[in-house]
Amino acid sequence: MFGENPINPADGKIAVLLPGMGAVATTFIAGVEAARKGWSAPIGSVTQMGSDANGVPIQDLMPLAGLDQLVFGGWDIYPDTTFDAAKRAAVLNPEHLEKSKELLASITPMSAVFDSNYIKNIDGPNTKKYDTKWEASLMLQQDIKNFLKDSNCDRGVSVWCGSTERYVEISEVHLTIEAFEEGLKNNDPGIAPSMIYAHALLKSGVPMANGAPNLALDCPAIIQLAERENVAIAGKDFKTGQTLMKTIVAPGLAARSIGVAGWYSTNILGNTDGAVLDDPGSFKTKEMSKLSVLDAIFDKESNPDLYGDMCHKVRIDYYPPRGDNKEGWDNIDLFGWMGYDMQIKINFLCRDSILAAPLVLDLALFMDAANRANLSGVQEWLSFFFKAPQTSAGKFPEHDLFHQRQMMFDQIHNFVPKDSAAAAE
Amino acid sequence: MFGENPINPADGKIAVLLPGMGAVATTFIAGVEAARKGWSAPIGSVTQMGSDANGVPIQDLMPLAGLDQLVFGGWDIYPDTTFDAAKRAAVLNPEHLEKSKELLASITPMSAVFDSNYIKNIDGPNTKKYDTKWEASLMLQQDIKNFLKDSNCDRGVSVWCGSTERYVEISEVHLTIEAFEEGLKNNDPGIAPSMIYAHALLKSGVPMANGAPNLALDCPAIIQLAERENVAIAGKDFKTGQTLMKTIVAPGLAARSIGVAGWYSTNILGNTDGAVLDDPGSFKTKEMSKLSVLDAIFDKESNPDLYGDMCHKVRIDYYPPRGDNKEGWDNIDLFGWMGYDMQIKINFLCRDSILAAPLVLDLALFMDAANRANLSGVQEWLSFFFKAPQTSAGKFPEHDLFHQRQMMFDQIHNFVPKDSAAAAE
Amino acid sequence: MFGENPINPADGKIAVLLPGMGAVATTFIAGVEAARKGWSAPIGSVTQMGSDANGVPIQDLMPLAGLDQLVFGGWDIYPDTTFDAAKRAAVLNPEHLEKSKELLASITPMSAVFDSNYIKNIDGPNTKKYDTKWEASLMLQQDIKNFLKDSNCDRGVSVWCGSTERYVEISEVHLTIEAFEEGLKNNDPGIAPSMIYAHALLKSGVPMANGAPNLALDCPAIIQLAERENVAIAGKDFKTGQTLMKTIVAPGLAARSIGVAGWYSTNILGNTDGAVLDDPGSFKTKEMSKLSVLDAIFDKESNPDLYGDMCHKVRIDYYPPRGDNKEGWDNIDLFGWMGYDMQIKINFLCRDSILAAPLVLDLALFMDAANRANLSGVQEWLSFFFKAPQTSAGKFPEHDLFHQRQMMFDQIHNFVPKDSAAAAE
Amino acid sequence: MFGENPINPADGKIAVLLPGMGAVATTFIAGVEAARKGWSAPIGSVTQMGSDANGVPIQDLMPLAGLDQLVFGGWDIYPDTTFDAAKRAAVLNPEHLEKSKELLASITPMSAVFDSNYIKNIDGPNTKKYDTKWEASLMLQQDIKNFLKDSNCDRGVSVWCGSTERYVEISEVHLTIEAFEEGLKNNDPGIAPSMIYAHALLKSGVPMANGAPNLALDCPAIIQLAERENVAIAGKDFKTGQTLMKTIVAPGLAARSIGVAGWYSTNILGNTDGAVLDDPGSFKTKEMSKLSVLDAIFDKESNPDLYGDMCHKVRIDYYPPRGDNKEGWDNIDLFGWMGYDMQIKINFLCRDSILAAPLVLDLALFMDAANRANLSGVQEWLSFFFKAPQTSAGKFPEHDLFHQRQMMFDQIHNFVPKDSAAAAE
Repeated sequence: MFGENPINPADGKIAVLLPGMGAVATTFIAGVEAARKGWSAPIGSVTQMGSDANGVPIQDLMPLAGLDQLVFGGWDIYPDTTFDAAKRAAVLNPEHLEKSKELLASITPMSAVFDSNYIKNIDGPNTKKYDTKWEASLMLQQDIKNFLKDSNCDRGVSVWCGSTERYVEISEVHLTIEAFEEGLKNNDPGIAPSMIYAHALLKSGVPMANGAPNLALDCPAIIQLAERENVAIAGKDFKTGQTLMKTIVAPGLAARSIGVAGWYSTNILGNTDGAVLDDPGSFKTKEMSKLSVLDAIFDKESNPDLYGDMCHKVRIDYYPPRGDNKEGWDNIDLFGWMGYDMQIKINFLCRDSILAAPLVLDLALFMDAANRANLSGVQEWLSFFFKAPQTSAGKFPEHDLFHQRQMMFDQIHNFVPKDSAAAAE
Repeated sequence: MFGENPINPADGKIAVLLPGMGAVATTFIAGVEAARKGWSAPIGSVTQMGSDANGVPIQDLMPLAGLDQLVFGGWDIYPDTTFDAAKRAAVLNPEHLEKSKELLASITPMSAVFDSNYIKNIDGPNTKKYDTKWEASLMLQQDIKNFLKDSNCDRGVSVWCGSTERYVEISEVHLTIEAFEEGLKNNDPGIAPSMIYAHALLKSGVPMANGAPNLALDCPAIIQLAERENVAIAGKDFKTGQTLMKTIVAPGLAARSIGVAGWYSTNILGNTDGAVLDDPGSFKTKEMSKLSVLDAIFDKESNPDLYGDMCHKVRIDYYPPRGDNKEGWDNIDLFGWMGYDMQIKINFLCRDSILAAPLVLDLALFMDAANRANLSGVQEWLSFFFKAPQTSAGKFPEHDLFHQRQMMFDQIHNFVPKDSAAAAE
Repeated sequence: MFGENPINPADGKIAVLLPGMGAVATTFIAGVEAARKGWSAPIGSVTQMGSDANGVPIQDLMPLAGLDQLVFGGWDIYPDTTFDAAKRAAVLNPEHLEKSKELLASITPMSAVFDSNYIKNIDGPNTKKYDTKWEASLMLQQDIKNFLKDSNCDRGVSVWCGSTERYVEISEVHLTIEAFEEGLKNNDPGIAPSMIYAHALLKSGVPMANGAPNLALDCPAIIQLAERENVAIAGKDFKTGQTLMKTIVAPGLAARSIGVAGWYSTNILGNTDGAVLDDPGSFKTKEMSKLSVLDAIFDKESNPDLYGDMCHKVRIDYYPPRGDNKEGWDNIDLFGWMGYDMQIKINFLCRDSILAAPLVLDLALFMDAANRANLSGVQEWLSFFFKAPQTSAGKFPEHDLFHQRQMMFDQIHNFVPKDSAAAAE
Repeated sequence: MFGENPINPADGKIAVLLPGMGAVATTFIAGVEAARKGWSAPIGSVTQMGSDANGVPIQDLMPLAGLDQLVFGGWDIYPDTTFDAAKRAAVLNPEHLEKSKELLASITPMSAVFDSNYIKNIDGPNTKKYDTKWEASLMLQQDIKNFLKDSNCDRGVSVWCGSTERYVEISEVHLTIEAFEEGLKNNDPGIAPSMIYAHALLKSGVPMANGAPNLALDCPAIIQLAERENVAIAGKDFKTGQTLMKTIVAPGLAARSIGVAGWYSTNILGNTDGAVLDDPGSFKTKEMSKLSVLDAIFDKESNPDLYGDMCHKVRIDYYPPRGDNKEGWDNIDLFGWMGYDMQIKINFLCRDSILAAPLVLDLALFMDAANRANLSGVQEWLSFFFKAPQTSAGKFPEHDLFHQRQMMFDQIHNFVPKDSAAAAE
């Protein structure tokens, strides 16, 4: 039947492989454990708590793996267990840390592929030594293979939870699989660590989602690879605090044909992410990701009277007092009937990792579903979770949260369990 | 064909009859004039500036009357021209007042049906003398007849732009047309002036929308009357400042399964509306209207973990320094993954009449379309414009702005010009 | 020498007697313990951390008792230890509670004098039974005598940390000592529990400060009693969150001759204090206290162009989600050169008990110093700590925080240790 | 008698010479005219509206020149009249512009000394041509001489109202009068236009105040020159929006020994000042000025527990939609008793020129008083008006607004009219 995607049952154990096991990854693991043990509901996770317009839970609409099926692993530049990493991240309070200790203390990251040209302001000892990036990819492929075997997992999914790499322009090396693999062998400086992970994961048949704004999966070579290897990819940059609010508020203003003269956004954050973004190279990557959303929602060309002169500025400042508890302040200059001006200020006191963690879970489960339904290449229906939704060549990204919600549910309704699909034929 | 509403062409002159010709009504008229003359685009009006998801203007999707076809009239307790009323309202700056003077100075309100039991804190001399409310309705029917004739209008539409009446519970007198008309003759104290207007307008075949939170059209007797007389009605309470923002932001939080522990809203405004709301009776009417929106969007029953304990408070304070430039401040207490708390503060420096005026235009044009398409009774597809959308018996109101947008466009797509409708058969 | 107050040394143990041992009192005790043990500095206490304009610590300017000399006691309607009360108050985190457990668990409140006509919305079992209010005072006097003996204290001080009683107008019974004591014997309904405490404490020679806005000490009879018994009193209403900010910001605007058209203040809080203030009687007491500050700082009579039309509104709303973490939002409408308007918004996310606790310490130590210097009656130099500074008959209260600071330091410099005073003669 | 400054009567006409006749200068002139004509009080001017702690107006405490005695002139890179400049600045509304037109249209700026190495992002045609900076100073001296003669003024005062020049480090050329004058002749690149104005004005016996953060008067050579020529100087950088609020709020927090973990400040403004500050060189000058205030008020050395780890960040962003209506947002991270954290957010919607204009008036009148009292060199008692108060060598600047207020009144009380001074001897 048209539009349907037959999907295999959600049985078996699934390796959740996380490049970057810092604040986000450890908070994600601790919260899954809390939900398994029943001492905290998985708030903020739409796969666990969400329902469609008729109130039917997503879990009843499609076959999703359960939390007990997940096995956690990953790579990090620090060799500590995820318990120590969580403690250092200072996201969880002492009581929650203690309750999660057993699981967190049992997980130790594998050594990471790291390149200080791509991430400044942090460094760590738990890194791989290699001569070529190709070799690095092979090492990662071996890691994956070992992990799946050691943990008795049928299959894996991966979500990039590492820091933001510096801004990279697409160049020759990113255009074809051949050029890319040649570049791996030649140590082409245009190939970032996140791309090496992508290469290794896709070659291992593991779907990958990218929670950071760096390219990683967003270049023709990787998209081609995903399609050739028949693996799903999705990205990029978790839509969490300020940008989440933007893609909620902007569609509302546009729906009402209210004019926007300017939108000024500033962010303060004091965690490792903030320290990394204090480097101009990484900031540019992030800024590009954050700036794109408004242009897509407020269409200047079609609505020059409303948005033609809109001035959009985005600032991020590293401000250590706040730690992981980032904060956004937005000033929106509006104009209405006869041009009279109005203003909206939005102050969002949020928590970086608390907002991101449930997205890791949702992406892991949905990517696993894509895998079971044999979907490959860019999964645009997951745009709902990203600041800068990655698309297949030629498509425009959708930024309006409510259109994204629609896209997600359209796909959810498309999944048809294999048996019933067979029966329907 | 199923779901289609054949609609007559939008030709001819249309009387726009406004009970209450104060700040909102005069700003509406001045802005229509500005758009006609071309010195200001009709910002905030979706009929004039809006388009569907594919970018097709609403004006190309259905036959709508043009601004030049509108003729303005109405009733008010002050006898001044709309120019003097606009000056007193102090919404428009001197330059805009001057530019609109010719039209505004030419419009004088008819004498109003007024009852100080229903609106405290204001009073005026331009009121009708009558023995029974039935007589008052007859006087209004005569006004309407005269206005249509004098202005050479084919047909009319009406939008209530008056103040908020005190809170009224539905009682016997509101349940049937018979009881209601009996009540008119007996001067039943449960019949508010807005209901007398409704009676007169519907008996005259004029569709009516209600921009205030008082019942007016929202009782069984009036709904039955609208259906019997084959006239459209819609209400209630223009969705403008704080509540507009609520129905934008709340659906976004719900879409992401983010928990809400509390939502505190306070409003300051200093215009006549603020003075009227300083009366506890009128405030209660408004409060009921403003409180309902969150319960509908955050479904406590289905999502007890997320919204079960939500505390929702709404305050309105009369604060004269600000005049028509009302301001809302919202504090939203959220919780996310593992229960960690976060906060959003929204400060909306808005303008009451500037936000309401384009809704008057949109409602006038859409109600006229309903009239030409022979739609009668409650027009739920106009919920997009209202804080407390009126529904037919047994239906639940939709508050999510984005679902409302969908409902509106679904109906817009249903309108089929009479000729093409005929051709399609 | 003129203006000097010879003061006895600060030796010996001091009973700190607290009517009301809830959130504020228990946080105060825990923090003193933390400072004694050295695991937290006494932040927010000017006796411990403050210094004069030349940087000389207050502790070097006058003889003050040390933290180790304080012994804590008090009365409460709940019989639990202060550890249980602190736990219920949920101000301190589990780690801090645990660290303070030994001391807090050792303190049990004496049974309270309580009258539900004066405080609504809360009730408790640990109350005294008596026939007349006179008898109640005698019981309290016995409590005090016992406590001093049992704890080996030379002397005592008292700080009211109880809830806000309902608003009371000054009447005959409050005008003289005689009428007041007659009223105690007659159970005059105009005598609030806080006044019975005041009577008992003053009769016992214990100075008393009042942290709540109810009259308590602020009536002629009690002032006369304080003078006759040669005991110091001070009040009223701890200046903590929003009002503290007001008395900081308003003097700055006044210093610059900036006009103020309006000042709108709203507060949300969810602790017991908030529940009590949800009763209109108690709210009125608080509102009177909070409203007075601006009129004193912005002098309408002398500056009609700047403050003649100022509109000042204060709201307090009980909002449970926030617990003890109250929040204020202020909107200030300014106007400057040629009348152009400007706005300041202040959003203070504060903590009720955290701000009040150090004031309890400062008042206890300063009142003990007043005692040792033989100062009696109203201590205006402590206005710095109060929302509604109590004054002797005929004096106007000073609200400007910076003038209050000056008054405080003037008195601090007046204290001369007895020996050196003798030597100087 | 000790501490008194005999002062000559305030008779005669005074030339007010303004380098930079843009938004601030034109708003200042229009407002003085409004006050003269009586259609707007001089709000925000302490010389006109302020009084001491006893309510005695400053004008009764010392002899000050009246508004009618002032004659306005100055220099600008644009040749338009001040009416055209005011129109372009878009600070005043059309009605106010019209009312001030007669005076504003009669004032044309003299050609300016301009150097695009010092101010980027703006340029204009009305500039002097010269070979050496010495020659430029001579031209300015001739301008001053002519202006005084043509306008029949006895004496002059000057207030720099120009843009912020780029950051300059003090070097050899700024250390002595000789080196400086040698530098003028050699076109030393370290000599900014504002210094050339300072040289010309001081050589002409005209006191000068500096409303911008550039050095101008703040170098040893100019201070020596002021002392040698017996002329008063004062600076620097008008204390207007965000920094004014800082020096109000910070002293209040310090008075209460409340800890400060961080203070984050961001500013958006869209006028010429904003455009100039978009240049990193000018921004650095401004940033240095804005950053200094907190360190002085929160003394880290004496109070390491309270302010030892304070993180202070200041941002300024050019944001055109807002024009002259700049806006500041501050987030202050506090901690109190036992280290519990709290937050204050301050959002100041202000107007750059409206806040600065009355300071121009106050500085002009006070500098004229200093002139008549024969005060020379740096006038620290005017610190009240400046973000970065200039001091004589070896003194620390005072930033606390309330200490500054005290310093100002101390000096005001020192002025003794010449006759009475004689009589008192």
